[in-house]
Amino acid sequence: MAAPGPPSACIGRVQRFERLKTRMARLHTLSLAALALGLVTAAALTPATAAPDQSAAVDPFIGTGGEGHTFPGAVAPFGMVQLSPDTDTTCTIRDCYGHAAGYRHDDPTIQGFSLTHFSGAGHSDLGDFLMMPASGDTVSLEPGDAKVPGSGYRSRFSHANEQAVPGYYAVTLDDAKVRAEMTAGTRVGVHRYTFRPGDAAHLVFDLRTSLYNYPGKMLWSSIRLHPDGTVTGTRETRGWAPDRKLFFAMRFSAPLKDHAFVDTEKDVTYKGFQGPGRGSDDLPERLGRALVARFDFGRLDRPLEAKVAISSVDEAGAIGNLDAEPGDFDAIRTGTTAAWARELGAVEIDAPAPMKRMLSTALYHTLIAPSVAGDADGRYRGPDNAVHKAEGFTFRSTFSLWDTFRAEQPLMTLIQPDRVNNEIVRSLVASQQVSPYGILPVWQFQGRETWTMIGYHAVPVIADAYLKGIRGFDADAALDAMVKSATYAPYGGLGEYMKRGYVPIDREPEAASKTVEYAYDDWTIARMAAAMGRKDVAAQFGKRAGNWRNSFDVKTGFLRARKADGSFRTPFDPTAINYGSDYTEGNAWQYSWFVPHDQAGLFRLMKGDKAVVAKLDQMFEYDNSKIDYSHAEDIAGLIGQYIHGNEPSHHVAYLYSYAGQPWRTQERLKQIVDSQYKATPEGLSGNDDLGQMSAWLVFTGLGFYPVAPGSLEYVIGRPFVNRAVLNLPNGRRFTIVTDGLSDANPYIGGVTLNGKPLDRGYLRHQEIVAGGELRFRMQATPNRNWATARSARPFSTSTARKGG
Amino acid sequence: MAAPGPPSACIGRVQRFERLKTRMARLHTLSLAALALGLVTAAALTPATAAPDQSAAVDPFIGTGGEGHTFPGAVAPFGMVQLSPDTDTTCTIRDCYGHAAGYRHDDPTIQGFSLTHFSGAGHSDLGDFLMMPASGDTVSLEPGDAKVPGSGYRSRFSHANEQAVPGYYAVTLDDAKVRAEMTAGTRVGVHRYTFRPGDAAHLVFDLRTSLYNYPGKMLWSSIRLHPDGTVTGTRETRGWAPDRKLFFAMRFSAPLKDHAFVDTEKDVTYKGFQGPGRGSDDLPERLGRALVARFDFGRLDRPLEAKVAISSVDEAGAIGNLDAEPGDFDAIRTGTTAAWARELGAVEIDAPAPMKRMLSTALYHTLIAPSVAGDADGRYRGPDNAVHKAEGFTFRSTFSLWDTFRAEQPLMTLIQPDRVNNEIVRSLVASQQVSPYGILPVWQFQGRETWTMIGYHAVPVIADAYLKGIRGFDADAALDAMVKSATYAPYGGLGEYMKRGYVPIDREPEAASKTVEYAYDDWTIARMAAAMGRKDVAAQFGKRAGNWRNSFDVKTGFLRARKADGSFRTPFDPTAINYGSDYTEGNAWQYSWFVPHDQAGLFRLMKGDKAVVAKLDQMFEYDNSKIDYSHAEDIAGLIGQYIHGNEPSHHVAYLYSYAGQPWRTQERLKQIVDSQYKATPEGLSGNDDLGQMSAWLVFTGLGFYPVAPGSLEYVIGRPFVNRAVLNLPNGRRFTIVTDGLSDANPYIGGVTLNGKPLDRGYLRHQEIVAGGELRFRMQATPNRNWATARSARPFSTSTARKGG
Repeated sequence: MAAPGPPSACIGRVQRFERLKTRMARLHTLSLAALALGLVTAAALTPATAAPDQSAAVDPFIGTGGEGHTFPGAVAPFGMVQLSPDTDTTCTIRDCYGHAAGYRHDDPTIQGFSLTHFSGAGHSDLGDFLMMPASGDTVSLEPGDAKVPGSGYRSRFSHANEQAVPGYYAVTLDDAKVRAEMTAGTRVGVHRYTFRPGDAAHLVFDLRTSLYNYPGKMLWSSIRLHPDGTVTGTRETRGWAPDRKLFFAMRFSAPLKDHAFVDTEKDVTYKGFQGPGRGSDDLPERLGRALVARFDFGRLDRPLEAKVAISSVDEAGAIGNLDAEPGDFDAIRTGTTAAWARELGAVEIDAPAPMKRMLSTALYHTLIAPSVAGDADGRYRGPDNAVHKAEGFTFRSTFSLWDTFRAEQPLMTLIQPDRVNNEIVRSLVASQQVSPYGILPVWQFQGRETWTMIGYHAVPVIADAYLKGIRGFDADAALDAMVKSATYAPYGGLGEYMKRGYVPIDREPEAASKTVEYAYDDWTIARMAAAMGRKDVAAQFGKRAGNWRNSFDVKTGFLRARKADGSFRTPFDPTAINYGSDYTEGNAWQYSWFVPHDQAGLFRLMKGDKAVVAKLDQMFEYDNSKIDYSHAEDIAGLIGQYIHGNEPSHHVAYLYSYAGQPWRTQERLKQIVDSQYKATPEGLSGNDDLGQMSAWLVFTGLGFYPVAPGSLEYVIGRPFVNRAVLNLPNGRRFTIVTDGLSDANPYIGGVTLNGKPLDRGYLRHQEIVAGGELRFRMQATPNRNWATARSARPFSTSTARKGG
Repeated sequence: MAAPGPPSACIGRVQRFERLKTRMARLHTLSLAALALGLVTAAALTPATAAPDQSAAVDPFIGTGGEGHTFPGAVAPFGMVQLSPDTDTTCTIRDCYGHAAGYRHDDPTIQGFSLTHFSGAGHSDLGDFLMMPASGDTVSLEPGDAKVPGSGYRSRFSHANEQAVPGYYAVTLDDAKVRAEMTAGTRVGVHRYTFRPGDAAHLVFDLRTSLYNYPGKMLWSSIRLHPDGTVTGTRETRGWAPDRKLFFAMRFSAPLKDHAFVDTEKDVTYKGFQGPGRGSDDLPERLGRALVARFDFGRLDRPLEAKVAISSVDEAGAIGNLDAEPGDFDAIRTGTTAAWARELGAVEIDAPAPMKRMLSTALYHTLIAPSVAGDADGRYRGPDNAVHKAEGFTFRSTFSLWDTFRAEQPLMTLIQPDRVNNEIVRSLVASQQVSPYGILPVWQFQGRETWTMIGYHAVPVIADAYLKGIRGFDADAALDAMVKSATYAPYGGLGEYMKRGYVPIDREPEAASKTVEYAYDDWTIARMAAAMGRKDVAAQFGKRAGNWRNSFDVKTGFLRARKADGSFRTPFDPTAINYGSDYTEGNAWQYSWFVPHDQAGLFRLMKGDKAVVAKLDQMFEYDNSKIDYSHAEDIAGLIGQYIHGNEPSHHVAYLYSYAGQPWRTQERLKQIVDSQYKATPEGLSGNDDLGQMSAWLVFTGLGFYPVAPGSLEYVIGRPFVNRAVLNLPNGRRFTIVTDGLSDANPYIGGVTLNGKPLDRGYLRHQEIVAGGELRFRMQATPNRNWATARSARPFSTSTARKGG
């Protein structure tokens, strides 16, 4: 920043530390070692009491170990910037999966702090524009070896000196001898580094690093120092998206004394000239494929701040984004802390200690994506790689739709309907309108398509929003986009699907999964079209909604892949999980249950409720001792053949209720929650997948779950909260109260809604948004009468009546 | 194009050919063989009589052999597009220099037709977006080996079947069995391909090829087929400029039946997914580093046209440029033919047969650059790689300033003053204002800086324009830009130059050349500042203008490089030419004469006129038999140590006149013209350098030359025309008449201006722009009295009087 920040003087005296000690107990505390270094700043000691209760219960470290792939760094709600530590970007291909969010809780060093991270993705990318402070006279421009301290700019650190709350992250860098703090606004990140008194302050800014940084990923980059001290630059990478441009603009709180822009690329046939004369490293510009910068500030008497904005559009956009959020570190942090308090306040949670932390953190994780992807001036980069302008909405991206259509997006329809209609749906439709393929996003980030996973699940997201009465978008354009996406023959065997009623496995891999997911998506088109009075479209897609039957093998009782000649592919092993197999990241056990819009029809094919319950039990209790899934990514969190770490299983525990045995759902939910979620870094049993794993817990914790988005119903499971309040955007409150919550009372005894007994096993969307009180009475033994009547079961038991 | 072009039916009957034969005599004729193939179109047979006399005299093949580096293809005056054949883009590094303009007249095959070419550059780049037609059932997507016919999409051709006139190029492709025609508008090129009746028509569009196509040059590219049939795309290359983005938009005259977008890149660690599903080649989009496209049209009953626009801004810019110039091949050709007639009409030339062709072609070559570089909507990419908008002018680039400040730009001040002020100067200043370095362009194309050659020669271009009364730009901003460029310490040893009064060779290579060129540029700043009343600036740079003396060694009589300690570097060999030597593409023989603003001062240091004449003779008559310059590029056209193929010598023949012996200048000019220019493909003895070699001939042919741009004077040499008329933009005519022009009369007998004897050896700029008649009388023997008086000699003999 041009204007220096307010003084944030080092303290460093032990007696003062002693006085503060009690207040610090609630934080990930700063160690005596950090104080001995003189590194602790006043801001770092600010206790979290200023934040409301809900933020204080969030632990951003949950999911940063194991397979969670979340990041602990600073992010504003749905922010474009995720400023977070990367513990290692020098991974080999296999390790990179574990570093998908840059940070692994068990790594011993931090390489630096970069601006972009996915929250729980199953693929490694981003990690743009990594910064690392350095002290003293010599500065290495290479990260060095994590096993050899001092071999590069990376630094050892200790979790004891680390703190993370929503919008703020801090750590003491032991080798760099610097206290590092991060905060983030919507499109800016602010670094604050406190150096030891007397140490010369430097920053290393590495444009080469990336999450999953294979050879050739970097297409081009540039960095430029402007006369006013602003630093801008860009990089283009070929990564998860075929290509991606990202721009930054950065200002420092202290005047720059010197700098070096170094091109480390070797073995280039021809580089031409770079810069006037002989291109010294202190020139104002450098372009190349392997750039690293050093900024030198000399000795400072206050912490050094570096405020950075990004843009997918251009450098002017990044400068505009920087200017759009004025203020220093503390100002940005204050704003973001308030924003988190506001957003997290949508669901007040009162639950036993570990559950409150798990649920609050889960809620936090649901509020990170889809991220803002458009600039403050409305411009954004679309799937055509061209720049467009969003009129009247903020363009959003990071659409992990195969995951998030299930529970993450339905949660948004309750607590963020404005974002769903004004921003997410409009962003999806705007993307379709400029897509080179004319279809809705599949897995898109920063406006760029990755073609990851299957289905056209932007469709249920839009339909669910429309059917819930969210109408802040052009419904005709949206329906047009949905139909185009569902009829684009080259996409994932859709041509064959339209011709045959199923995707043939000898023409298209993962055919069984595609067939059933397409059929569900089709049903949501039919539902929305019917609501819009578009009978032709409703009829066309209503018919297609039944296509799941064409891939179901009544003989084995499993969903199976059929060949073009109509036969099921053999050999058939319902436990096999392989890439390019009949299923997508799963097998027949998980996928055979995927008919959210017609479970009744499915159960009939499965020979009735009794057989269904037996099959569900068989799934949960499967003996995996002879099975090895170590070759398959994202297969984690196994309970028999129920795999909670990946999405196809997410609705399955609720199916007992459809079969008339809700107490079995209640049992399974406790089993899943107890085994798959923990209030620790290893607390997520699989990738959080941009909030889906967390949204499952939020809904399940409240006592209900959207098994079939588009149905306007939520299936009642069982609550894990003492009390929770949905503070709805319409000003109403929907309160969940649980009487008798304890491990000893795993079963629902009875339910009331607004004081009246609720005998059915599901809630209607309008009942929630109307506000009111849902009251559970828990007991030690199953209530085998509650919500078991056929008429009391979730909607899908009566699909025929409800259309589709 | 969406609308098909008018019918252009194949003729193919021999009797009709016989009737047309006479009319075709003036063309590079089409052979009987071509007709037998059925390839000759009506348009191709249109004789050039429609074009005015001046265009008809232009032979675009001049300079396409030897070291000329010109291209024969289609270009509009100063056009952004240069649509021209590339005979080989698969050169090795050494060969690439010879293919700097894509086409070598002695190559046996054409690889394809690409959209961008430099006219006579000393460096290979461009050659963007190469197209090649293909006939029949199988189409190769690789160029193949020129030595193995049929091994790829390239084709043999014969000069007998080739035609080139301004704005139009045609050739019969023997292997492809296609007649190919090219035309170009300002920002569009139009291909027209006539296939044999019954042959399936295809186009290969290769995004991989480039002039000097070393490994890694291609950073990224993309191609996309839009629903309306428009094809767009981009590529980013690291070439002469550190990076360069170019976009295209293309439409065809016939409906597309099929297409393939193929990614030929191998050995990539990770490519991600490209396009929906499994990414077949017929999807509407492809991105990658090695793309080639095939377009299939089936059998056509009329020629196929492909109209392509380019843009440095974005694909929308390219589409806008395509739309801004409506019309089919014939319409674009008609417009460009008229534009050439208009622009070439600025100088009417009546000269003996080969000279008329040489001069008309030279004039044509001066009207190609600086090219339009901004889009039809005013947007352009600047040296900061960002997009800007030109308000009230068209942004131009391709500034080969070290070459063109000498004669090309001064010629423009006479025949194109609007372009000089409104476009060239404004483009230069606009570039400076967004330059990361804050300085004027050095060697810039498509808005991107290459840092090639030395000096800040945008400065004399602007000063010369200002001093000549061209004022359509902000003079204060221009002077500011000039001063900043002349005081930017990191550029080419300028910091040392400002400190010491010369560039020290132990701190900066090519120090001697830099010192004298800086001193001249400084003098032009002083001149312009004085004219603006900016005495401080005039004084500062007037002083610097004398710095050339600090590098002149009176003892040896040569310009030499000094070291920081003040001594001249040894050993000293005035004939040595090496990279990184004391001089830039030259040696002491050529560079010692470079004091255009103070030849009188130089001559005094050289011990007077007599010694000067002896030294000039020694230079021209130097025995090179023991010297080998084959290691040095751009050293061609040697007459002793006078090297006409490169720019430092260009003014030297005129210096005899400064020394009081104008008849010796007259002799040398005839010697140079006779030996260095021919009306053949090998007709340029060195790179045309974006018009400088040609501008030398235009001026010299007219009888005068701008030895010192900024002086407002032209030194009289001797004319090579019978008669010429400068049709000045102010509506006046300045006529040159030569009585007694013949090889037998190499000397000027006398000169009159507007009927009155002109005894001085120079013309004033205002005398030309006032219009009038300059009449030469030629004779067989020298007139040793004309223009020999000291007061009659060119201005620089009296520098002291004129300031600077």
